[in-house]
Amino acid sequence: MSGVMAIDADRQLAMVITAAGGPEVLQPRREPVPTCGPQQVLIEVAAAGVNRHDVNQRRRGPDARHSDIPGLEVAGRIVAVGEYVTHRKPGDTVCALVDGGGYASYAVADASLTLPVPHAMTMIEASALPEALFTTWHNFFTVARLQAGERVLIHGGTSGVGSIAIQLLSAFGHEVYATCGTDEKCETARSLGARAAFNYRTEDFARRTLEATGQRGVDVILDMAGVVHAEANIVALARRGRIVHLSPGGGADMRFPLRALMQKEGIVTGSLLRPLPLDEKAVIAAALADKVWPRLGTQIRPMISCTLPLAQAAQAHQRLEEGDVAGKIVLLPQSLIDADAPRLPI
Amino acid sequence: MSGVMAIDADRQLAMVITAAGGPEVLQPRREPVPTCGPQQVLIEVAAAGVNRHDVNQRRRGPDARHSDIPGLEVAGRIVAVGEYVTHRKPGDTVCALVDGGGYASYAVADASLTLPVPHAMTMIEASALPEALFTTWHNFFTVARLQAGERVLIHGGTSGVGSIAIQLLSAFGHEVYATCGTDEKCETARSLGARAAFNYRTEDFARRTLEATGQRGVDVILDMAGVVHAEANIVALARRGRIVHLSPGGGADMRFPLRALMQKEGIVTGSLLRPLPLDEKAVIAAALADKVWPRLGTQIRPMISCTLPLAQAAQAHQRLEEGDVAGKIVLLPQSLIDADAPRLPI
Repeated sequence: MSGVMAIDADRQLAMVITAAGGPEVLQPRREPVPTCGPQQVLIEVAAAGVNRHDVNQRRRGPDARHSDIPGLEVAGRIVAVGEYVTHRKPGDTVCALVDGGGYASYAVADASLTLPVPHAMTMIEASALPEALFTTWHNFFTVARLQAGERVLIHGGTSGVGSIAIQLLSAFGHEVYATCGTDEKCETARSLGARAAFNYRTEDFARRTLEATGQRGVDVILDMAGVVHAEANIVALARRGRIVHLSPGGGADMRFPLRALMQKEGIVTGSLLRPLPLDEKAVIAAALADKVWPRLGTQIRPMISCTLPLAQAAQAHQRLEEGDVAGKIVLLPQSLIDADAPRLPI
Repeated sequence: MSGVMAIDADRQLAMVITAAGGPEVLQPRREPVPTCGPQQVLIEVAAAGVNRHDVNQRRRGPDARHSDIPGLEVAGRIVAVGEYVTHRKPGDTVCALVDGGGYASYAVADASLTLPVPHAMTMIEASALPEALFTTWHNFFTVARLQAGERVLIHGGTSGVGSIAIQLLSAFGHEVYATCGTDEKCETARSLGARAAFNYRTEDFARRTLEATGQRGVDVILDMAGVVHAEANIVALARRGRIVHLSPGGGADMRFPLRALMQKEGIVTGSLLRPLPLDEKAVIAAALADKVWPRLGTQIRPMISCTLPLAQAAQAHQRLEEGDVAGKIVLLPQSLIDADAPRLPI
C-alpha cells in the first residue's frame, strides 16, 4: 500500500449485521480499518447509499461469503491506494461500487469500480449513483440488449434504480413509461422524464401502456417486484420484448401463462448485480465513465430521499421496508467520527 | 393461375375437424380443391406430416381464423402455380410448410415456403421435414441466437422436432445432449448424434447434464413439455443460457424459482411457428435452402414412425396422444383417391 495517510486503526466504526432479523439486528461495532489489496483503494466514506439488497442481506443474516457490513456504494476521499493502482491517488474524491462494507467510516473498493465525484454533485448525491447506474446499464444494455428507438417500462419509477433509469434512458432518447404506487410518485416520475406514469394500485398499467404505445407495447420492462406484475408485464410487452427482473421479490416462484409469452416470442430474464464477476463490473464502469458521466448533474441527477447518520442505519432499513421511500436514503458516517476528525465537504 | 393441370374439382378429399374433441372428431369430407393465390402453388399431396400442433388444434375445435383441415406440412407434386410465381412450375416435386390444409389430397402453399424434395429422399421423408426444420432453425438461430461452439439440450430427442434438431445441430458442430422417456429412445437419440441422452423418467437429467459438461451446463435448451422441466432446466443451464419453449404444454402456468434464473442471467422464452408472419417464414425457408438442404439425406434424415392412410388420421392422433411415438407419423392421401388417379412415386 503506497501513499497511506495517517489513519487511526481504532477510529473505524461500522454498522454490522449481527443476526438474521429486523432492522434492530444492525448494530454499531468498532472494526479495524480494512486494508486494500494491490488493485484496490481505501476510501474515507463521506456518504453511503442504502439499497434494497442490504435489507435482504440483513434478513438472511450473516453468511460466510459476504462481509457482515452491508452497503454496496459509497462516496468519499481516497486515503490509500494499492501498489498496482495507477489512475487513482490519495485525495481523489470518488464514488464506487463496493462488495459490501459500505456502512462504515472506511471502505475498500476495486480501483476499476471507482468513478470521479461529478463536478456538479455533492458527496451525498454521488453516493447514490453507483448501484443505480451499474444496475441500469447492465440490465438494459447487456441483459436486455436495448436497441436505439426501443420503448421501455420501468416499475418503481421513484425507487433508487427507477428514478435514475428514467432519466438515463430518456437522455438516451428512449420513450420511457413508468409505474409507481401513488399518484404523487407518478407525478415525480413524469418530472424525471417519463412520458407517462401509471399508478399500479389504481390503474391497469398494462392496458394503459398499450394505449400509450398505439397497442404496440414496450420492448423492455424493468421489474423489481418478482412475480407481482408477471402476467400484466406480458400483456404490456411488444413482440420480442424482454422482461428483466432485478429482484426475486419475496422469493415466491415466478408464474405466468407460457403461451402468452410464446405468442410474442417474449423473454423473461434478470440478473443479480453483486455476484457479477469483477471484470464484467469493470467493463460497466468504463462504459458509464464514457457514456453517462458527461450527462451527470445536467441530464441525470439522483433523487435523495433523506440522509441519516450511519448509526441510524436501522431506521433507514425500516423506512425502505415500509415502502414509502422516493429516491435513495443516504447514510453519513461522519457523525460517528470524533469531532477532531477532518470533515469532508458534503 | 397459370399452367393448371386437369383437376377434378370433386376429387378432393380431406380430413376435417368437425368439433372440439378426441381423435374421433376428425372426419373425412369431400371438399373443393383449394385455389391458389398469385404467390401460391397448388400441390397434389403425396404425404402429409402429423404434428402435435394438429392434435392441439383438434382439441380446441374449429375456429374462424384457421382452416378446419389440419396439417402444417406436405410433400407432393405441384399441379398449378399463381401468376407471380417464377421459381416453381407444375411438375416440380416439393415439400412445403402450409398454414393448415395438409390433411388433404390437394393443398396450397406459399411458393416461398416450398423447398425441393431432396434427391436422396422419398416423398414420405420429405413431408416430415418442413415443420421440424423451420421450428429448429427459428428457435435455435433466431429466438435463442445460438452461437458457434455452444452446447444444447433437446428434450423429446426422438420426437419429430427433436430427432431432426439433434442431427442438424450435431452436423453444425454443436455438442448436443438429449432427454427421452425410455432407454430405447435414448439409444436412438445417441445414434442420431447426441453425445449423451438421459431418460428423464429414471434419471436426474439436470445433474447428468452438468456432469457431462464439466458443471458448465448447456447454453440452449429446447423444451416442448411446458412447465414439466422448468426448474430442472434452470439447473442444467449455463450462465446466460436460453430455455426455448415450443409448446405451452397442457396449458398450466409456467412456474420456476426466479432467483435461480437471475443468478445465471438465464432466459425463458419460446415461440409459436404457425402465427409467424409470412415474410419471416420465407426468410427461414431461404436459410434452410442455403444451409441445410445440402446436408439432407447424408447428415440429416427424418425419422419416420409409420405411415397411415389419410382416412386414418384419427389413429395417428391417438398414437401421438399416447406418447409412444418415435419420429414422425405421415399420412398418405393417395389411398383416398380413386384407383384410376395417377399415383406419385413415394
